[in-house]
Amino acid sequence: MEASKIHSFDLRVYYEDTDLAGIVYYANYLKFIERARSEWVRDLGIDQSKMRDEDQLVFAVRKVEADYLAPAKFDDVLTVTTRIEAKSGVRLVLDQQVNRDGVTLFTSMVTLVCLGLDGQVARLPAVLRRILH
Amino acid sequence: MEASKIHSFDLRVYYEDTDLAGIVYYANYLKFIERARSEWVRDLGIDQSKMRDEDQLVFAVRKVEADYLAPAKFDDVLTVTTRIEAKSGVRLVLDQQVNRDGVTLFTSMVTLVCLGLDGQVARLPAVLRRILH
Amino acid sequence: MEASKIHSFDLRVYYEDTDLAGIVYYANYLKFIERARSEWVRDLGIDQSKMRDEDQLVFAVRKVEADYLAPAKFDDVLTVTTRIEAKSGVRLVLDQQVNRDGVTLFTSMVTLVCLGLDGQVARLPAVLRRILH
Amino acid sequence: MEASKIHSFDLRVYYEDTDLAGIVYYANYLKFIERARSEWVRDLGIDQSKMRDEDQLVFAVRKVEADYLAPAKFDDVLTVTTRIEAKSGVRLVLDQQVNRDGVTLFTSMVTLVCLGLDGQVARLPAVLRRILH
Repeated sequence: MEASKIHSFDLRVYYEDTDLAGIVYYANYLKFIERARSEWVRDLGIDQSKMRDEDQLVFAVRKVEADYLAPAKFDDVLTVTTRIEAKSGVRLVLDQQVNRDGVTLFTSMVTLVCLGLDGQVARLPAVLRRILH
Repeated sequence: MEASKIHSFDLRVYYEDTDLAGIVYYANYLKFIERARSEWVRDLGIDQSKMRDEDQLVFAVRKVEADYLAPAKFDDVLTVTTRIEAKSGVRLVLDQQVNRDGVTLFTSMVTLVCLGLDGQVARLPAVLRRILH
Repeated sequence: MEASKIHSFDLRVYYEDTDLAGIVYYANYLKFIERARSEWVRDLGIDQSKMRDEDQLVFAVRKVEADYLAPAKFDDVLTVTTRIEAKSGVRLVLDQQVNRDGVTLFTSMVTLVCLGLDGQVARLPAVLRRILH
Repeated sequence: MEASKIHSFDLRVYYEDTDLAGIVYYANYLKFIERARSEWVRDLGIDQSKMRDEDQLVFAVRKVEADYLAPAKFDDVLTVTTRIEAKSGVRLVLDQQVNRDGVTLFTSMVTLVCLGLDGQVARLPAVLRRILH
């Protein structure tokens, strides 16, 4: 997979995702886009478990800007798209959207960093810097 | 309670809130600030169940801007503060922060609207407009 | 799909599913088996949204007996199997298990009923009684 | 606090706890009783973080038998009661119930063990065996 492409990930909405308003609870969109990031990272050839155990690095979210445009409902099949908006040696900004049948329900800009065991910001893993170059 | 004051709400971090990184999962801060908004609304004298059943109005989040400054951990007691940043007849912007022992871990600006049964944006309930005036 | 067969549903474990012990949080297995039930019901040709809107019926869990045999971890691909253990006109007992690479991590017996709008137990939908006959 | 007494813990139902059926999602009762167990353990003078870091021991759920009697709703204040049903050197069985205004909505028997770092069952911590004697 080329990092410049838009990554696409499908998921189904289940009971657990909804609230009494009959729609997806607003915090759960952050779960959806995190699942998509995990799949995107895996598709880039990065093993997050190994990265944590061997390199003592984890990804951490620093900032989220999210717009809720229209609600998702039970049983919907949603597509999460992930695209690199900006990057540096220590920071990634991802443009992540949630769509249903071509209609955008949710947009977000998510800023990620890598943290070492000490909780300090570390450089992104070499493999990721290379891929993202 | 005066609407102009800062509302304060305490909560405890439990197992359910954490992830394998040993800290609070990033989506769960949106749960924490939603709990605080529910308590704030209740303290203003608004019954959300009645508002939904009688006035056919629900609050909906339109936008969230969130900054993650430092992680919360299992067993932490957190304080969520809620303050009105801006308001109009149809829109509320809340400044919500999560603190631990006086240290700010998370800041957010949350834009809320009221939706009618048809999913269209409605004016805020009269009682709320009056209180927030 | 024949109802007598074992239904099988795969899912991936994400960050949201884990807790600070580094394994899947115990309540989340109930989410996993509910996702599998939703897929099983869909495969039987039942539309739960329509069932709720047109027949005013929802499924409700009455009883769960769950055994936690071994932990699931981040990134695991899990298979949930669903099999009818017992049935009557108003009640279904499902044997649901969670497996990883052929090893059973979690077993459960889940008793389901149908509830009408009044919250009273109703007969299972005709289509389901016919399928399950 | 004496271990023989019934421990009581109150919580509020928020949006995050509900699903599209307008009631508390069935998996979330396991979150509620886990919060109560964490508070019960704390009240017994046990620091789970220290227990994990110093004694390399964590509590793990082995078995849950749960009965759903009546639904909890948004805004409800619920009381979780926790009582020791049975105990041995390596195992605790807790009777945990969720009540609203004196009406029991949910009952459960939860079997807990302690696990060492190697994932093997370990004796309960000395302090707990002494307290529970």
